[in-house]
Parts: sequence; C-alpha cells; structure tokens
Amino acid sequence: MRYSALLTDLYELTMLAGYFEHGMHEDDASFDLFFRANPFKGGYAVFAGLEPALRYLEQVRFTEQDLAYLDSLNLFRPRFLDYLEGFRFRCKVIAPDEGTVVFANEPLVTIEGGLAQAQLVETVLLNIINFQTLVATKAARIQHAAGDGEVVEFGLRRAHGPDGGLGGTRAACVGGVRCTSNTWAGQIFGIPVQGTHAHSWVMAFDDELTAFRAYAEVFPDNAVLLVDTYDTLRIGIPNAITVAGELRKKGHELKGVRLDSGDLAYLSRRARKMFDEAGFPDVRIVASNELDEYVIQSLRSEGSRIDIYGVGTQLATAGGEGGGALGGVYKLVRFADKPRLKVTQDIAKATLPDRKRLLRLVDAAGTFIQDVICREGENLEPGATVYDPTNPSQRRRLEKTFDAVEIRRVVMEKGQIVGDLPDLKNCADHRVEQFRRLPEGTLRLHNPHTYKISISPQLHELRERLMEKIMF
Amino acid sequence: MRYSALLTDLYELTMLAGYFEHGMHEDDASFDLFFRANPFKGGYAVFAGLEPALRYLEQVRFTEQDLAYLDSLNLFRPRFLDYLEGFRFRCKVIAPDEGTVVFANEPLVTIEGGLAQAQLVETVLLNIINFQTLVATKAARIQHAAGDGEVVEFGLRRAHGPDGGLGGTRAACVGGVRCTSNTWAGQIFGIPVQGTHAHSWVMAFDDELTAFRAYAEVFPDNAVLLVDTYDTLRIGIPNAITVAGELRKKGHELKGVRLDSGDLAYLSRRARKMFDEAGFPDVRIVASNELDEYVIQSLRSEGSRIDIYGVGTQLATAGGEGGGALGGVYKLVRFADKPRLKVTQDIAKATLPDRKRLLRLVDAAGTFIQDVICREGENLEPGATVYDPTNPSQRRRLEKTFDAVEIRRVVMEKGQIVGDLPDLKNCADHRVEQFRRLPEGTLRLHNPHTYKISISPQLHELRERLMEKIMF
Repeated sequence: MRYSALLTDLYELTMLAGYFEHGMHEDDASFDLFFRANPFKGGYAVFAGLEPALRYLEQVRFTEQDLAYLDSLNLFRPRFLDYLEGFRFRCKVIAPDEGTVVFANEPLVTIEGGLAQAQLVETVLLNIINFQTLVATKAARIQHAAGDGEVVEFGLRRAHGPDGGLGGTRAACVGGVRCTSNTWAGQIFGIPVQGTHAHSWVMAFDDELTAFRAYAEVFPDNAVLLVDTYDTLRIGIPNAITVAGELRKKGHELKGVRLDSGDLAYLSRRARKMFDEAGFPDVRIVASNELDEYVIQSLRSEGSRIDIYGVGTQLATAGGEGGGALGGVYKLVRFADKPRLKVTQDIAKATLPDRKRLLRLVDAAGTFIQDVICREGENLEPGATVYDPTNPSQRRRLEKTFDAVEIRRVVMEKGQIVGDLPDLKNCADHRVEQFRRLPEGTLRLHNPHTYKISISPQLHELRERLMEKIMF
Repeated sequence: MRYSALLTDLYELTMLAGYFEHGMHEDDASFDLFFRANPFKGGYAVFAGLEPALRYLEQVRFTEQDLAYLDSLNLFRPRFLDYLEGFRFRCKVIAPDEGTVVFANEPLVTIEGGLAQAQLVETVLLNIINFQTLVATKAARIQHAAGDGEVVEFGLRRAHGPDGGLGGTRAACVGGVRCTSNTWAGQIFGIPVQGTHAHSWVMAFDDELTAFRAYAEVFPDNAVLLVDTYDTLRIGIPNAITVAGELRKKGHELKGVRLDSGDLAYLSRRARKMFDEAGFPDVRIVASNELDEYVIQSLRSEGSRIDIYGVGTQLATAGGEGGGALGGVYKLVRFADKPRLKVTQDIAKATLPDRKRLLRLVDAAGTFIQDVICREGENLEPGATVYDPTNPSQRRRLEKTFDAVEIRRVVMEKGQIVGDLPDLKNCADHRVEQFRRLPEGTLRLHNPHTYKISISPQLHELRERLMEKIMF
C-alpha cells in the first residue's frame, strides 16, 4: 500500500519551511527514536515495523496534488514548495533487525542526514514503529504464555481500520504468531491463513448436525466445527463426534472443534475426554473468546486441553494495562556538529545527546548480562562504572569479562536499503532465540525482573556537561 | 485508499464456498451489525464509518491476483473461484447517518440480500465501523468535556498504522473535533490542519529566544511557540512575550503558545496572567501532554485558562477504560424466509431475530425519551408494554404520547449508494444537535444515566417463541 508524503503532522512541514528559509535545511542532524517505558508494564519490547518504514522512506515523493494542497493552505512560499517537489530521502538509518528484544530508553532508530529530511520523517517513523513494535511485543507475550500451543491471529474485525489489521498481522508474526485469519495479510506477507466458520453458518441450517455435515462435506480434510451455537457439551460436541465418525468412514478425519464461550478450561478438558473416548484423539481443540496472555496463562495452569488459541481483539489492538499505544518519541541529538540535549525539569524526560552505539553484553554461556548505551567510537572497559539512563545516582560496575555485541547496524545509506532485510520468519526466529538468552524473570508477565540498561562513562560525562551549561 | 476484496477473515470465504456448493448462496438473508456494551463504560456511542464502508462495498472486486492466491491455498474448487470472479455486492443496506447517537443492542447496520454477499462483508464492515464508531465516540466525549474549548487531533504518531491515523482522524471529526495535525487527512477529507513546532526546532538553535524569533520570522501570523523546552515560566513565556512584542512592532500578532509538560492548570493560569499583563490578551494558550476527557474535565474544574486542547494518543487510539476496541458483532437474523436466533446459555449473548425498525421516541419538547426496536411493519401503540433487550423480566409501559422517529434509512439499494451521504461537517452538527436532546445524565463521563432501549411487544413475542422451539 502506498502512503502519501503528506502522511505527517503539519508541524514537520512548517518546521521544514522554517529550516529552509533560514538555510539550515541541509545541515547535518541526528535524531534518535526511542520509548521511555516498556509496554504492558512488561520487561521488554520486540522491535518491529522497520521494513515498512524503510520502504516508505525509499519512495516518498510529493506529488503535484500534494503540492497544490499545501499551496492552498496559504502557509508556504513557492520556493519552499519547489524544494519539496525535488525532495528525496537520502539519510543514513541505523536500527536493529526486526524481532530484536529492546528496552526503554535505548536508541532504536537513528536517522542521520540533512536536518529537513531527518525531521520530515518523524511522524511516519513513529506511526509505523510505535504500532508494530507494540503489537509484536503483545504477540510475543501471548505466544510465550501459550508455550507450545499454536496462536492464530483473529483480530481484523476489531483492528483500527483496514491496514491497522494488515500492519498488525505483520507485526504479530514478527512477535511469534504463525497464523492469521486475515486473508489479505496472507497474500501480501505470505503468512499462513486459517479459517473455520461462524455461528451464522450453523444458523443458516435447520439444525446444528445438518450444518456440521454440510461443512464437512465441502471441507472434508479441513473442517474445524464451531460447537457452541446452542449448547457445547450437550449438543455441539456430540454432533461433532457424529460428523467425525461419518468423515472417517469416507477416509477423512475431522480436523478440530472451536470453543467460543463458557469456561474454556473446563469445556476443553471435557471435550478432549469425549473425543478421546469416541476414538478421535487427534481432533484438535481451538479456543477463542477475548483471550490474551493472562487468560492463556491461567487456562494452562488450570490444566486446559487447548491446542490452538485464536486471539483477536487483544492482539490486534495490543490492549491491556500499559497497552493501546507505545509512547515512542523522536528527538534531535546532534546538529551542526554539536551534541544536543533536551532538558525539562524532569530528568526522566531528558534526552541522551549525540551519536551513540547500543551494545549488549553477553556472558560466556551466551546469556545477556545487560545493555550499555555508549558514545560513537567509545569502547567499553571491563569493570568501568556505568549509570542508569534516567537516574545518574544509580551506578554500577561492569563485569570483568563479557562480549559486547552491537545490536544495531546501518540499514539504509543515502536513502537506499543496505543489504537484504530478514523475512518475517527470520525475524520471528530471532525473537525466539533471544528469549532463550534473556534472564528468565525478564519474560514474566507481572512484575518482571528489570533488565539493566546503562549509559557509558563518556555518555554520562557528556550529558552532565551539557546539563550544567544549559541550566546555569 | 483502495482495499482488497481479500480484506476479510478466511472463514468468510470458506463459508461462501460452502454456501455455494450447497446452492444456498443466493437465498435471501438479513444480517444485523450491533454491539453489546457502550464503549468507555459510557452512556452512548456515536455511529461512524458508514461512508468508507459503503464506498468499499460499491467497488469490491476479486482481481486475478486475488483469485490466484486463493487457488494456491488448495481449499477452493475452480467453479467457486469463477463465481468470485463475477462477485459484485448487490445488497440493500439500512443504517443511521454518521454522527447519530446510538446505544448497545440496537441494530445499526442491516444488510439484506443473497447469503453469500451479505456474509462476505462481515469482517470489513466490522473492521471499519467498530473502529470509526469507537473513535467518534471518544472524540465526542473529549469535545463535550472541553466545552467551548477547541480540540485539535494530534495522534498520528501513536495511531495504529498510517490509515489507523487517517480513518481515526475522519472519525474524530464525525465526533466533533474540528482540526487535525494530520496533513494527509486534511487533504483527503478537507479537515482544517494545524501545526506549531517541536522541541527539535528549539534545540536546533543556540538558544530558545533565537529559535522563537526564527519561527516567528517565517510565520509571523501563524506562530504558536512551544515554551517548555527548558523552563516554561522562567524562560519560555518571557521569551514568547519578547517575540510577541517584536512581532507587534512589525504589524503582526503572536498567535499562541503551547504548554506540553508540567501542571497545565497552574501553568496556563500563570501564562494567561503574564500575557495579559504584558498587553497580549489575545495570545491563545494551547495545551498538550496525554490529555483525555477526564484530564480536560479536571483542568477546567481547576480554573485552567486553556483555549485549545491538543489531544493525541488517547483520541487516536480511543484509549481508556472500556476503550481500545468496540466489540461490534454481525449476526444472521433472517434466512430463507425464516427469522433466525442465536441462543447460548447466556441470554445477554442471544440475538434479536428478523428484520427490524429502530425508533426513537421524542416528547413534545423534542427531548429523546427512549429507543424501541420493533419488528418490520410493526407500529408502536402508546402505553404498550416493552421489554429490556437482554432481560425480558424488566418491562415498562410506553408513554401515552410521543413522536416516533425512524433512526435508520436505506442507504444502499442493489449495491448502489442511495442519495447523498452527509459530509463530515453535517455529521458533526448532527451529533451536536442530538446531544442537546438527550437526557443530560446520559452524557456524564462516569456512571452515566442509562438511556432506555426496549424491544417491542411483537419482537419480544417472536424471540420467546423461537427460544422455546430451540431449547425444547
């Protein structure tokens, strides 16, 4: 889907006009995209949305209609509109791969280049990366809660508009969901699609058994029957067992049943027993109805026998406490060869100045120890003192031995994507591999262990110095 | 933006294939779209999303690529794919105008026509109408809380993807917001756009005063200065007053300042006083920073002096308790000349069968008394007994005199839009006009008065009869 160059807050354009009129628009700038709190009150986030963002940056152009519209606002001078006509995004972009586990206060995407170019793309970068990172994180939480259970994304009808559904499904796959009901997302992104039938199918026939038989006749090898239209245990499951028997006589097997209301833990145990006793141990049990990571965790701890979780609303809208939106921001960190700092009375809202590296320290067993944000060109000394990014009085010493792995790489140079971007499957695998290496408490849904993020000695020193200068 | 015919859950297509194979696909069906609980634990919802939904239905087609993709799934027979190739939406659609105040359990959109056509569009209708109704409702709550204050939609960076922002901005306008920062939405929907500048503007200059002067130089009649980069009261406002004075000497007036952090009630009072005393009573005060209807209500009750509220995240994502998603559903109510009912053990989840009218009863003063859902062709008798839609033991007598106004009309006939659809301004005015006529307690943010919805005697009788038949 092609998005307009006007997919931006107007203030980006008024600032651009200002920079242009003052001759600053091509001066070198660096911006960092980061967020200040992990979503869902959780211990981490899963970075996503990079590829769609980069594809947008590669092709963004102001069309004649766009320029005519901007002209009609009576805000911009003709020579600025001429400048926009020739606008191309030619910056460098530094970012982690999608599926990377990231944390609050870490510079995620850094844009380096002419001030106007780097400024203009603030809104669209935030829009795409905030949303997809939020959903990827939710998906990872849900898949982690489901353990070996399969999760199918079902949320298109509650997603925020058509490509809220499309982008959300993509992000859910980065986070670890392997299947969707969203057929368009299946087509565009190559994600496996699944579907059963709705209550309306059952209601369109005179009785449930007739409806089940009719469905199984058309999809003898792919029938998942929704068993709760009238009464799950008294009517639905017995009818499904009847149909399973009829299918077997014709050389087919019933694929599964879906539970969509009631006590899913209890019903799944009863359904499992009924199918097993009737000789159908391979009929899979799908459950849906307002599932999220907490409900799934609880269902599993109650000994439910659910094979597949259909998760809709809460995944597609990334709902729940601390959800709904990721508060990513985009801040100027260097301009015209000088590091820049935003202060404010609240140090938690101050920024980390200048160009930076993001390092992950790894122990000999491969487990992640902590992340450190350094200045560009700075090397971390073992045993060095590092500082909390929002509270400099919290400091600690680094271990004596560690490997330091660079989490980010240059993904775009002069506006062109560098190398190949990993496909969705690779992004998802990358997420899984990192979950194995994180301190386990970091993955806890409630009150997780806080994975440590520090700033390096040189970055600390720079920030202190700039603060003194501004405040006094 | 053009959306694919594959913008659907796969199960719609498997059901369609089933209906097609059984020769049922052209039999007459009626589906109702409705929701079971008002969003935000509030007293109402504002219906929105109809026009984009109808425009989609008018043009939906399966392309060659779509059919090739479906073929690749190995689920569908060639003759069904041939049927899809010729698929056109030719149903009748009945709905309220956008901006209409609606309530839980009311049939909002009714689709009548061939079973396959009416079934296929379930997902896309729910996707568009759930989301836009949710955001329009949030916008109405926020604008109502703001009273005469102006509300500007700022949320693109936190919206769920690019057209989560686009559709959300449109819906916010239906709900009553008059301005946006989203330039693309401005272009497409003709919504007035506004913009100021970001902290990065200030940080790109050596000091704040220089930054303010530079901005005012480029936009002498449109400058709204962001005053909190360093210190709002000690630095920001005094610098803005300096620039206001300089502008006035050149024949211009500073338009406003924006407060984006700190205690907005206190800061706005102090800022107002400082500008008034300096001779700038017309400088407007814009406030932003995680605003929603509750914060705005509280700011106003604290005597804040805010003229314009910039509302971002909470509006664009329709956040807050009971927000994030509207749980609209789409249920078969009539098929093959028979009313259809979904029961389940929970009567609150049972459906209202058959074709219906939705009437709003109005007293002599024009105030809304209550809504009644009737059977098609049924006329309401004054004094008749009516029933709660989810609890038949709750009944009441209608007033002796009332006017009954039909809330819905035929908006599409044989797949073509009927007449003109109201523009966004008219939808917004319609919402405002109805707010005046609602019992006031219905608009309360917390614990609102429950506006009464009833079902008519004949609809009650039909449902009781169908339930008996199914349950025994």
